[in-house]
Amino acid sequence: MPDMPADEFRRVGHEVVDWIADYLAGIRDYPVVSHVQPGELTQLLPTSAPEQGESIDDILADFRSLVIPGVTHWNHPRFHAYFSVSASAPGILAEMLTAALNVNGMLWKSCPAATELEQVTLGWLREWLGLPPEFFGIIYDTASISTMHAIAAAREFIDPEARTRGSLPNLTVYTSEQAHSSVEKGAIALGIGRDNVRKIAVDADFRMIPAALAQAIEQDISAGRKPCCIVPTAGTTSTSSIDPIPAIADIAERYHAWLHVDASYGGAAAVAPELRHILDGTSRAHSMVINPHKWLFTPIDLSAFYTRRPDILRRAFSLVPEYLRTAEDTSAVNYMDYGVPLGRRFRALKLWFVMRYFGHERIADLIRAHIAWAHELAEDIRSDERFELSAPVPLSLICFRYKGTDEQNRTLLDRINASGIAFLSHTVLNGKFVLRLAIGNIKTTERDLEQVWSFIQSMADDLV
Amino acid sequence: MPDMPADEFRRVGHEVVDWIADYLAGIRDYPVVSHVQPGELTQLLPTSAPEQGESIDDILADFRSLVIPGVTHWNHPRFHAYFSVSASAPGILAEMLTAALNVNGMLWKSCPAATELEQVTLGWLREWLGLPPEFFGIIYDTASISTMHAIAAAREFIDPEARTRGSLPNLTVYTSEQAHSSVEKGAIALGIGRDNVRKIAVDADFRMIPAALAQAIEQDISAGRKPCCIVPTAGTTSTSSIDPIPAIADIAERYHAWLHVDASYGGAAAVAPELRHILDGTSRAHSMVINPHKWLFTPIDLSAFYTRRPDILRRAFSLVPEYLRTAEDTSAVNYMDYGVPLGRRFRALKLWFVMRYFGHERIADLIRAHIAWAHELAEDIRSDERFELSAPVPLSLICFRYKGTDEQNRTLLDRINASGIAFLSHTVLNGKFVLRLAIGNIKTTERDLEQVWSFIQSMADDLV
Repeated sequence: MPDMPADEFRRVGHEVVDWIADYLAGIRDYPVVSHVQPGELTQLLPTSAPEQGESIDDILADFRSLVIPGVTHWNHPRFHAYFSVSASAPGILAEMLTAALNVNGMLWKSCPAATELEQVTLGWLREWLGLPPEFFGIIYDTASISTMHAIAAAREFIDPEARTRGSLPNLTVYTSEQAHSSVEKGAIALGIGRDNVRKIAVDADFRMIPAALAQAIEQDISAGRKPCCIVPTAGTTSTSSIDPIPAIADIAERYHAWLHVDASYGGAAAVAPELRHILDGTSRAHSMVINPHKWLFTPIDLSAFYTRRPDILRRAFSLVPEYLRTAEDTSAVNYMDYGVPLGRRFRALKLWFVMRYFGHERIADLIRAHIAWAHELAEDIRSDERFELSAPVPLSLICFRYKGTDEQNRTLLDRINASGIAFLSHTVLNGKFVLRLAIGNIKTTERDLEQVWSFIQSMADDLV
Repeated sequence: MPDMPADEFRRVGHEVVDWIADYLAGIRDYPVVSHVQPGELTQLLPTSAPEQGESIDDILADFRSLVIPGVTHWNHPRFHAYFSVSASAPGILAEMLTAALNVNGMLWKSCPAATELEQVTLGWLREWLGLPPEFFGIIYDTASISTMHAIAAAREFIDPEARTRGSLPNLTVYTSEQAHSSVEKGAIALGIGRDNVRKIAVDADFRMIPAALAQAIEQDISAGRKPCCIVPTAGTTSTSSIDPIPAIADIAERYHAWLHVDASYGGAAAVAPELRHILDGTSRAHSMVINPHKWLFTPIDLSAFYTRRPDILRRAFSLVPEYLRTAEDTSAVNYMDYGVPLGRRFRALKLWFVMRYFGHERIADLIRAHIAWAHELAEDIRSDERFELSAPVPLSLICFRYKGTDEQNRTLLDRINASGIAFLSHTVLNGKFVLRLAIGNIKTTERDLEQVWSFIQSMADDLV
């Protein structure tokens, strides 16, 4: 019996399910942030793998006693750092099946269900977001990889020779000062270069200024440069600001540049019909990205990328060696043709489970609640004269600070995170150190947020 | 209760475990290749997601009755197409935990255990492969992404200005005619361009000819070009040929080019000490990739990338926005600094489970058995005068053909795959259509291979 015997898998599988059920039910008993020091887990583990196999019970015991203390609990309802995410229970069940099937959906032929379920679920999500039916969907692992593919498609759009000859030195990419670092990183990876990424100024609410964008493009054109890609954001990482996409789309059309909307986090809000304005203008984009693993209760990783020009994305990336040719090359989508990774996990399965189990209304209601709670908490923060809001709260992220020094705010943050009660992160806005509190976990309740805010207030008492 | 209630998760989780246990135990009852036609699953699914949530029992019933018929079973012991892979049971158990924890290991701080377990397990694997201790390990999703990062590091090594200024038009990348398409795709993505990838000729055994490589480099240098990266392969995709890495390393050193060894599939064999010669010369490489999700019984996706120059990889990719700065930026590894993707699943957990559960000896024995069986089957094929081997069998992949027309071989392949008994793929060697039979699944037995070979022989009877 070369693999684990079926009976053993069954027994241990049940134990693991029970552990997960207890973990999810009792997750508030864990400190959100791990207390370990760098190297602490490494010290506890042998420097070599075992020669002889070990019992699965010993491995699981070590998982619980050694690994878990080193885990920062992203699935915790008081994890408010970065963006607050969830692996909902139906998503976890789907991941179990994905692991067992172990398919690689590189070709339609290599697993028809993986390809078709990806098309179907991304069609469903497109409809929830109010995006046009001509948007072609593909799943990548992360928004950074999605955005890299968007910029690569933009290059193919502007300069179809790049694929054979290499990148021209005069392509430019435009995004805002508040954009995610993945735009710049994508341009670096693609050989466009960091110097050729323009970070357009933002207004007082941290939104890209369209006039500044147009001016930068004019200057570049005068200097003999070629505008390639414009990347506005619906929900920036620092403050969740929403760039004025319609005005930016006008500019993209005027200068024939590719428009890619980074809605990795904010796009989820458009699932609630009354919040669709967040994606206004996105239907005019050439591509957009939204991450169901951020605010749609889907386990990491699943980044949904849409483009109205799959022909260009395919032209940028398709390379079909003989050993991957199939009879269905013209009658079905082979997702490997649309990107760098050849291997593709069956990620659509978890999105299918999540969308069906919760349904449109319940997911929209969860998002509405998160936004409403964020507004209530922002009001509480505004009402406490020791604190101030540092940015508007258009979605479910609150940026605020103690009205004191950066050092005091840093101390406050460290104390909150060391407490185990909550995990917040930070940013710098207008030169000041600012705390970020993101709401988005499916288990978060108003009670959790009251507890966090009370605790922050009590910590502030100690700062004086 | 916004997420699934704990009791429901427990009940359904047990059902899913039982389904997986039955699936793994009874996997031979499934046809290896799905019989569905393009669009068949799509037709069976609603065009919109439900407004109201549905019961998990209904979703699982649809999974079994609608999705499963569209699945080609990569985990089946007679899946011999492409490369034969496995999600072993301990790997599946680890994936269940990874999904439940849902961490993002972008920073040490964001989940210390994910970062440290990645360092520890990749250290273990490095030791099993006999690679030098200075090799720094990082997990990417796929070999294509690993190789793209290798070429990006090579560019940073040769031209540190590329990061800011963009790619120079004169960089060249060298690989063989038999190399995986990911080398070319990586060069396209990075803006180096397809025209600047030299596909060096191979010998009669499909191995890169070092003299031809040196000649190509000399010609390029004479033409004012800059050799950037040389990519030999230990186990090519078409035939599993192993390029003469020591001679190629000499050339890389002579011309100061980055040497990246693609051992995605073949590298696993080096786990058996007597087979380490497969990686001869790799210790002189700047980077290498091996995919535990190919031949090390680890669920997809997990590609292990090693480099002796993490400083260069980091210089190529590090971009730290304020909101991701941590107190441990200098005392711990933040893996986000070493690549494009920011989000990172806790992939090391499954490698840790697999390496510990099976141990070094058992994994080496499995690989030895696969290679021995491949040699026996190759002997059987050679002994049947209707067939011929089309390439040497250095590892566990057999390339062979019916001594007839390409059309007859194509018919043979289609009939085998339509039978449900096995899944083989094809390639073209010396202008001829050739069948590929890969051995690598943990559940494959000699009995399976006898059955497959008998069936192929009986199908050949019908060809005449």
